[in-house]
Amino acid sequence: MAHIDLGLDERAYPGIRGPMRFRPETARPLNGLAEALLRAPHPTLSPGERELVAAYVSGLNECRFCCASHSALAAAQLPSGMALVEQVCADLATAEIGEKLRALLRIAAAVQRSGRDVTAELVAEARAAGATDLEVHDVVLIAAAFCMFNRYVDGLGTLAPDDPASHEIAAKRIVQHGYRNAGQCSAL
Amino acid sequence: MAHIDLGLDERAYPGIRGPMRFRPETARPLNGLAEALLRAPHPTLSPGERELVAAYVSGLNECRFCCASHSALAAAQLPSGMALVEQVCADLATAEIGEKLRALLRIAAAVQRSGRDVTAELVAEARAAGATDLEVHDVVLIAAAFCMFNRYVDGLGTLAPDDPASHEIAAKRIVQHGYRNAGQCSAL
Repeated sequence: MAHIDLGLDERAYPGIRGPMRFRPETARPLNGLAEALLRAPHPTLSPGERELVAAYVSGLNECRFCCASHSALAAAQLPSGMALVEQVCADLATAEIGEKLRALLRIAAAVQRSGRDVTAELVAEARAAGATDLEVHDVVLIAAAFCMFNRYVDGLGTLAPDDPASHEIAAKRIVQHGYRNAGQCSAL
Repeated sequence: MAHIDLGLDERAYPGIRGPMRFRPETARPLNGLAEALLRAPHPTLSPGERELVAAYVSGLNECRFCCASHSALAAAQLPSGMALVEQVCADLATAEIGEKLRALLRIAAAVQRSGRDVTAELVAEARAAGATDLEVHDVVLIAAAFCMFNRYVDGLGTLAPDDPASHEIAAKRIVQHGYRNAGQCSAL
């Protein structure tokens, strides 16, 4: 049971989907932000790589719903699927990813602790591995945004289903239709 | 100097205003969220009270730019002005505010640490002091959103001006024109 009465069956609208239906006025910009950060065309970072940042930060924040849902979204859009997502979440240092993505994920981990933990050295390492200003900007904002989404979902005590299949179904819908259109303000 | 080249004079666009101009695609939903949470008509929470939540959480996150700018925004819209903002940030337990607002700010402080720190007891205390479901929802999301805004501003190493007058001028512009229209995607 969520901390507030969301006015709906939480099993049908688990995680962020309940609060999104409860408050469509805030759901609109939240879905717009998720769409701009994770799905909009990007010159260099694929949707799968951006969802990987979201899943990784949600794991660090121990947010079960967001970690499961964005892991499913990353897995659905990365060639190496869930195996790679699990590697990254288990041990970033040894995961089979390129050095640029590893350096960007290190910046995301710093953001998760505190914005002030992002040092010039971390950014210089990412740049040396080939990262652009736009990539650093977007990874900082994706990591920061999931420090919001994770707190929104857990701060209201919403339901996090254990069934991986439900996250895979929701991921397919979002990959196909986008965050704004995958449901009635209930997509994320 | 920010961690990335924002392509502008940072003294003219300090704090979040630089990244907002750098990336208007993400500035749009970010300003939309700030507008919906902090300025849109609300049945019970005044804009000043909502800005107070933003300033308080930004102080807990030690984000100098956001704390100064949202303290100025709260002070400009609360009858007791900056004195009350400073009281709340210095010691919530003794600040001269109503018990409902105090209980809501305690929820905000829990969200700042982790969404999972919001307990049924904290919500029950707020409810006993008269808080509604909508107030709990909005305070959780304002606190969560400032865990994002604070990390965005500090994670990119943006400039935080020491001059309080600059924050007062920006606050007046936002109070009058709103987050979306106070500048070219550079309002917050």
